[in-house]
Amino acid sequence: MKKLAIGVDIGGINTAFGLVDDEGTLYAEYVISTKKYPHFGDYPQYVADLCAAMKTMIGSVSFDFELVGIGIGAPNANYHAGTIEAPANLWKFTDADTDRDESRRIFHLAADIEREFPGTKVLMTNDANAATIGEMVYGNAKEMKDFIMITLGTGLGSGFVANGELVYGHDGFAGEFGHVVVERGGRQCGCGRRGCLEAYVSATGIKRTAFELMATMTEPSELRDIAFKDFDSAMISAAAEKGDPIALEAFRYTGEMLGRALADAVTITSPEAIFLFGGLAKAGKKIFDPTQWYMEENMMAVFKNKVKLLPSGIEGKNAAILGASALIWQNMK
Amino acid sequence: MKKLAIGVDIGGINTAFGLVDDEGTLYAEYVISTKKYPHFGDYPQYVADLCAAMKTMIGSVSFDFELVGIGIGAPNANYHAGTIEAPANLWKFTDADTDRDESRRIFHLAADIEREFPGTKVLMTNDANAATIGEMVYGNAKEMKDFIMITLGTGLGSGFVANGELVYGHDGFAGEFGHVVVERGGRQCGCGRRGCLEAYVSATGIKRTAFELMATMTEPSELRDIAFKDFDSAMISAAAEKGDPIALEAFRYTGEMLGRALADAVTITSPEAIFLFGGLAKAGKKIFDPTQWYMEENMMAVFKNKVKLLPSGIEGKNAAILGASALIWQNMK
Repeated sequence: MKKLAIGVDIGGINTAFGLVDDEGTLYAEYVISTKKYPHFGDYPQYVADLCAAMKTMIGSVSFDFELVGIGIGAPNANYHAGTIEAPANLWKFTDADTDRDESRRIFHLAADIEREFPGTKVLMTNDANAATIGEMVYGNAKEMKDFIMITLGTGLGSGFVANGELVYGHDGFAGEFGHVVVERGGRQCGCGRRGCLEAYVSATGIKRTAFELMATMTEPSELRDIAFKDFDSAMISAAAEKGDPIALEAFRYTGEMLGRALADAVTITSPEAIFLFGGLAKAGKKIFDPTQWYMEENMMAVFKNKVKLLPSGIEGKNAAILGASALIWQNMK
Repeated sequence: MKKLAIGVDIGGINTAFGLVDDEGTLYAEYVISTKKYPHFGDYPQYVADLCAAMKTMIGSVSFDFELVGIGIGAPNANYHAGTIEAPANLWKFTDADTDRDESRRIFHLAADIEREFPGTKVLMTNDANAATIGEMVYGNAKEMKDFIMITLGTGLGSGFVANGELVYGHDGFAGEFGHVVVERGGRQCGCGRRGCLEAYVSATGIKRTAFELMATMTEPSELRDIAFKDFDSAMISAAAEKGDPIALEAFRYTGEMLGRALADAVTITSPEAIFLFGGLAKAGKKIFDPTQWYMEENMMAVFKNKVKLLPSGIEGKNAAILGASALIWQNMK
């Protein structure tokens, strides 16, 4: 009988999920709202509605199959415990809550789903780790034992693979490369500290860079017509295509910050390749070229010209679902 | 029959080796000179003499045993290939050599030794990685799957363990944490770049710090009586014991640089513990306290107060031999 896994991608707005085989073919896809359940107290109903929708999806498939597991990618997910711990944008307290103890915001999602699907393996990790395993199972890292995945979205996520295994770390939260400090006392970061890589290298980071450059450079630029709140990183890409000097410098600077940080990461894990995934990575040469140049420029001699900088092989609208389902296939190896 | 492994520690001055059981008991120990064989062309004779000395050692043991393998810790060792590649202080070219192509300085030591001990497994890694495996097999990391070892000698070496396995990296050279850049454009490093962690945190690094502080501080200090070339890090330890303000500040600054770098390393691999090994680590609270404080101060919230900073459990004069022999026991698991 055909074997299928469910991949679930939990975002702040929507939860998307699908039935996937071990080659990455998607047989069904559903979406429910996540933001319909904003409050701490909404979590049980969210789980009930998610499980019901997954059962509906399973019933919608026209052939018999074996469900081998449910893999979930979610923010703040702890792989070892199967929990989502104090997520910034999910199931929050409001001012009306008298007890706002953050330590209560540990959601045992894997166990809660397993109760509705008895005997089915449920595995969970953060979205960047899920994308990393997707790259191993379906993407360009199929034969690789040592690589680094960098996911460039609103923030910067990462997954490190060593000896053929994802590095989860002792507490299940490893791979927070976006929060390596690259500029002591630098830009404020959402994590509460300063100078983190993701404050420079991400959709938000390059936007901040463009605004800084409008102050430090005097060249004319179409970007000067747009207010901060209306601005997004796609506008920088579009302007760079037309040769806009501020947009081009923003990409060069972003590549410099990323390339330097990657040179340091290479000294630690010495990967065969580094993959760039997500929105900013789609800018192609504009981000790859400076990143590669600064990475090599800052590399320790023993690692020079050895590490490939590559685009992800699982880009596309279903990448997050595929990545989450890959958790199951990887675990069955 | 009792099983024993040989551990070999190749340094620039001497090569020390010994017969060790799986609990770390040393049954015999020998030393030959390394510096007697300084030239590229001396390498074959070095191998012959080392193998002969190992055979003499084996013959000197009064009971029957099975030799299960030979583990080697050496600078610039490539675990995957069993080679020592372009070592800075071993088997060098001299001005008399007409062909000084560094790519010829790849020494296939594992295979060359195996030829003299047919059927015996020979494994090789750099000295810091060997110490890391020693910590896993004989030391304080016996039950740990995720930890970082920092070896503080003339330089700073490291070993990263994730999912119970040492991270060798694609090329076998991973774990060069001493060459993460902590100060952009900072102190010159022996690797040819600037601002590497080891230029600040190592016996050489703290000496450089003490000299910098003699310039920036005005307090009297007994260290002001010693010339740079006569100075070593033990003098800073001794002065700190007596409350010398420059020596104390040198330790605080060293701990600050190490603590910050470790906070970044934790975001990548999220270890259960970090071990400090070697000369500087013997300064105890003087180095552990500031390192711990700055590590926590700079730590991302999710990792705060989770990571133990611990002394190594394999300190002592035979640590390097034990670490090298541990390669064999670890490989048999």
